[in-house]
Amino acid sequence: MIRAGIFGATGYAGYQLVSILQRHAAARIVFACSESHAGQRLSDVYPCDSPLELVAPAEAPLDSVDLVFLCTPNGVSAPLAQRVIEAGAKCIDFSADLRLHDRDVYGKWYGEHPAPELLPDAVYGLPEVYRQQLKTTRLVANPGCYTTCALIPLYPLARAGLIARDPVIIDAKSGVSGAGVKLTETTHFVNVHDNFSTYKIGHQHRHVPEIEQELACFSGKPTRIVFTPHLLPVARGILETLYVSVPPDYADKDVHALIAEQYQEEPFVQLLPLGQGATLAHSVLSNRCTISVHSAGAPGEIIIVSTLDNLVKGAAGQAVQNMNILFGLNETTGLL
Amino acid sequence: MIRAGIFGATGYAGYQLVSILQRHAAARIVFACSESHAGQRLSDVYPCDSPLELVAPAEAPLDSVDLVFLCTPNGVSAPLAQRVIEAGAKCIDFSADLRLHDRDVYGKWYGEHPAPELLPDAVYGLPEVYRQQLKTTRLVANPGCYTTCALIPLYPLARAGLIARDPVIIDAKSGVSGAGVKLTETTHFVNVHDNFSTYKIGHQHRHVPEIEQELACFSGKPTRIVFTPHLLPVARGILETLYVSVPPDYADKDVHALIAEQYQEEPFVQLLPLGQGATLAHSVLSNRCTISVHSAGAPGEIIIVSTLDNLVKGAAGQAVQNMNILFGLNETTGLL
Amino acid sequence: MIRAGIFGATGYAGYQLVSILQRHAAARIVFACSESHAGQRLSDVYPCDSPLELVAPAEAPLDSVDLVFLCTPNGVSAPLAQRVIEAGAKCIDFSADLRLHDRDVYGKWYGEHPAPELLPDAVYGLPEVYRQQLKTTRLVANPGCYTTCALIPLYPLARAGLIARDPVIIDAKSGVSGAGVKLTETTHFVNVHDNFSTYKIGHQHRHVPEIEQELACFSGKPTRIVFTPHLLPVARGILETLYVSVPPDYADKDVHALIAEQYQEEPFVQLLPLGQGATLAHSVLSNRCTISVHSAGAPGEIIIVSTLDNLVKGAAGQAVQNMNILFGLNETTGLL
Amino acid sequence: MIRAGIFGATGYAGYQLVSILQRHAAARIVFACSESHAGQRLSDVYPCDSPLELVAPAEAPLDSVDLVFLCTPNGVSAPLAQRVIEAGAKCIDFSADLRLHDRDVYGKWYGEHPAPELLPDAVYGLPEVYRQQLKTTRLVANPGCYTTCALIPLYPLARAGLIARDPVIIDAKSGVSGAGVKLTETTHFVNVHDNFSTYKIGHQHRHVPEIEQELACFSGKPTRIVFTPHLLPVARGILETLYVSVPPDYADKDVHALIAEQYQEEPFVQLLPLGQGATLAHSVLSNRCTISVHSAGAPGEIIIVSTLDNLVKGAAGQAVQNMNILFGLNETTGLL
Repeated sequence: MIRAGIFGATGYAGYQLVSILQRHAAARIVFACSESHAGQRLSDVYPCDSPLELVAPAEAPLDSVDLVFLCTPNGVSAPLAQRVIEAGAKCIDFSADLRLHDRDVYGKWYGEHPAPELLPDAVYGLPEVYRQQLKTTRLVANPGCYTTCALIPLYPLARAGLIARDPVIIDAKSGVSGAGVKLTETTHFVNVHDNFSTYKIGHQHRHVPEIEQELACFSGKPTRIVFTPHLLPVARGILETLYVSVPPDYADKDVHALIAEQYQEEPFVQLLPLGQGATLAHSVLSNRCTISVHSAGAPGEIIIVSTLDNLVKGAAGQAVQNMNILFGLNETTGLL
Repeated sequence: MIRAGIFGATGYAGYQLVSILQRHAAARIVFACSESHAGQRLSDVYPCDSPLELVAPAEAPLDSVDLVFLCTPNGVSAPLAQRVIEAGAKCIDFSADLRLHDRDVYGKWYGEHPAPELLPDAVYGLPEVYRQQLKTTRLVANPGCYTTCALIPLYPLARAGLIARDPVIIDAKSGVSGAGVKLTETTHFVNVHDNFSTYKIGHQHRHVPEIEQELACFSGKPTRIVFTPHLLPVARGILETLYVSVPPDYADKDVHALIAEQYQEEPFVQLLPLGQGATLAHSVLSNRCTISVHSAGAPGEIIIVSTLDNLVKGAAGQAVQNMNILFGLNETTGLL
Repeated sequence: MIRAGIFGATGYAGYQLVSILQRHAAARIVFACSESHAGQRLSDVYPCDSPLELVAPAEAPLDSVDLVFLCTPNGVSAPLAQRVIEAGAKCIDFSADLRLHDRDVYGKWYGEHPAPELLPDAVYGLPEVYRQQLKTTRLVANPGCYTTCALIPLYPLARAGLIARDPVIIDAKSGVSGAGVKLTETTHFVNVHDNFSTYKIGHQHRHVPEIEQELACFSGKPTRIVFTPHLLPVARGILETLYVSVPPDYADKDVHALIAEQYQEEPFVQLLPLGQGATLAHSVLSNRCTISVHSAGAPGEIIIVSTLDNLVKGAAGQAVQNMNILFGLNETTGLL
Repeated sequence: MIRAGIFGATGYAGYQLVSILQRHAAARIVFACSESHAGQRLSDVYPCDSPLELVAPAEAPLDSVDLVFLCTPNGVSAPLAQRVIEAGAKCIDFSADLRLHDRDVYGKWYGEHPAPELLPDAVYGLPEVYRQQLKTTRLVANPGCYTTCALIPLYPLARAGLIARDPVIIDAKSGVSGAGVKLTETTHFVNVHDNFSTYKIGHQHRHVPEIEQELACFSGKPTRIVFTPHLLPVARGILETLYVSVPPDYADKDVHALIAEQYQEEPFVQLLPLGQGATLAHSVLSNRCTISVHSAGAPGEIIIVSTLDNLVKGAAGQAVQNMNILFGLNETTGLL
């Protein structure tokens, strides 16, 4: 039985993580921290029936757990990760603190890195790509939600050197839980409902360097993206429409075959038959990334549609998948 | 041309009022105040194309207007109303400050009244009931949204002495704009969307004394209500399901006929034929109150369904209807 | 391992049942029938990854299963139930065919009963009330969704003889999946979204005789209800606001204590502390019925709010709970 | 007073048209046809208070009107248009029948053209581009909704020869009313709500030839597009995210200035300041097309966001704007 601790248990990703772990046959929650709700029970904070007690971060018994999940903000996570590692536990971090290999890139997007000495040891937690490295690490950088949704379909193409032209255009649409529990104008019901809008359009969103880093790793050469996030009037789910240039002799069916071959054994990648289109409904509330491939109407122009649940495969589900790998369990344990 | 000023122009009711007045053929906005957005234009605050300048409340030129709308909170309105009246303009107040005749009742629900000397002069702004008094007043207490939705169908019954038994049960459902622009847990998209909940259940909501006061005025005797507000995952609209006991020889068709007779000339009351049911869609974005009458299955038991748009007939539309009466215009001018 | 068969697997309740059974540790689906989609896989019909093959009802191998779930319409179920029982399997029926004890009452609401000889053997599948009888039956009438939501909170009061006055008013609100997969004006997105409406108001909905039958069983005397269903612009969930008259010396806390005592051991009944209100979010996607108790503001007047997921505790989840009882499993197996 | 007739009054665009015309100071509806609802009143079909009588198409008194609006399907419109012109009235057609200049292109996308002799006389009803021609025509091809949303922002660029590279990528998102009143799987509430999906992806949607035709007219050279429509879980509104390659020395502010200059006098084009983003809320329920311009992060790469209400500027509002032009009225009469 894996003894797990959680920091940031009352954010959306943290709450999703608790929900998954409470039904996980091989893990139990030893502590769950919440800065804002310490002293309460989870059922005081969310409409559920969980009596889980929320403790202050300072009271977390780090020495009584095998693994700590950090569902904490950028900049807060890295110092916590250091404490966890020093206490002898493994650590899966949901923030961006350990995702970028280059501290200067981190500095440009987030400010000075709080613990750059951790970066060499962190493994980027995308099991479909880095499963081998994940088996032996103590420190996992759980990927961003938008990032996962883009990288899973682009990995086979980038790896095969088939991305023929810059930029890859990623037209991304996310549900509101991606904006977090914080009260903002953006998340007021009246502003979101019946509305649809863009934000941080072009090359401004913090998931840009993360996607570009990984595409460069996959293909061995820099690959620029254009990234346009939109806010959907739904609570959960991401759908990304990817416009990719491939060599003109590659048709949609060739790209489909390539992705099919790459992921045929993957439990959480669902490639739809040609002619069907991925929808939010395929992925929401599951740990699946669902992919469909389409011709854009001219040789070498491909459209890929990719969907996932931002709180599951885009956060807590992927983290549990990583936990299962770290501890040698069947990778699907506790995941739908 | 009526010269109008507005306090509280950037709340939802205020913004709705601006939208109506900007298309009103016989009124123009001389000033629009906003404490939080002074110095900006309306198009900086809301997704519209209005260049209306927002000024600080202290800079409102009260002596250059014929009428002031107060879209301001309870407790803030009454002192403003005093200034408006002293400056020689007429005043329509959206808050509860002038609605309750009895300062002790006000005190019980809202705290000490800030200007009780105004109460005798204020007319309750429900045109379907108080049209004659409104024609000659300077001071209008614009009714609450839930209140209007309940009183319009209940007025004919109460007036005819047909409410046979206490309490009238009002099961009320409102869209989220009723909760205002303020950022609260209640209005976070993720908490409201796909959800449905009650609040201030039973005899706790501040519209209770207002409804009970008016029912007593209509019938000449105290009438108790039970009032259960619910929050609907929509932006606009109220639907109230009213459970009323009438004398056992009164059938649904008799109640229907009574309401039909009362309101046959009213431009903003739509009584549906027996067999049809009022829905939010009948009233949203219009100044209509839509009513349907149903048998509850036993003699003397009637269900009435009543709907309106909380920002239009429940606030800004009714205020413009009142303005039209105050200034001798056709009552439907500028209203859909 | 329970070998289960399903008729009507591609309606919403059937699809929900498949989803639950596919994760159930002690059951497996031997066959799933669909009249409209025979020959397809479930993933052709719904956005999921299930390769489950759908067969024509005529091809169902009744002799190779231990249990058959009938997610079929009223009138279709009873003859199927007969075949199932004759084949030696147990049967859980989602329709109304086996719910009403009196064939004349059935006749009045549904037309002539297709197999009245089954009625004496069917047990009404509300585990919180009829657990003992369910342990030994072969034939379960799975209750209606609205019915379950009303009966769970009313059972302790009715049983204790505390319903002081007719009628109990049930103001009920349901999500759209309750209207089924069929294409109708009622389920067109544009008609439902941003709307809210009533239907079959008063004493007309087919769940009325079912609720009244059970209340009479609980209390030993006829109890009339008023029932007003509304359609919520959400996919799932029911919230019922119940107005109940109890003896004037019974306060909200007394009713709360009574319900607490009745259900303290029940895994799927969540009674909220006084002061909190049940919301859709408490119950949606779970097998819970969540209840809160409130004063209506005068002695003897109580409001109870009750919520559940119409497809889970209101249909498929309750059916699996019944299956667990029929086969002697832990009652919560496979249910969240 | 313009005497207007309507065919197809009970589709969404027809109903929207009725709503606008009923408040139009210089037009009145002489007849409104509906095949499916002849003999009923509009308030029997939609939740409104309009007593407008619906007549069978065969009974339309064509000789008593000055103008006929055809809100009828592709293939049905053209023969009707012929009858209208012969009867001496002007005609505004909402279908695609008169939009494509080349009958062979029509044939490829829609089948053989039912009345090709009409094509030379029809003017494409985009006032911002073809105002002069519209002033003198009898026959208007009212543009498609997606088309209008793309063409308004692209016109200044195409006309100036600034579209540097094929294809222009149009990632389009539309509300459900765009799919029409027909009952389909696509419009069932449960399939759309909380979902988001693509359809007719790449180069398959029937608005593709229409957009490409106009871009070629604007620029004098063929311009290919990629077009990916998505279905938003809202009732109204289109947002298109356009990815355009311009010469590398053209920055976002240059494109912004070009569009600003083009449309400075246009009442229904709202160009937002740089730094703001167009949202559905800017345009829904108005006749505006709202545009914002953004850098995609590299020289020559521009993103334009364009929004409108598919039933207003994308259909009925634009038709009324065209009517105003045809009859020499102020172009904004009756439009918000």
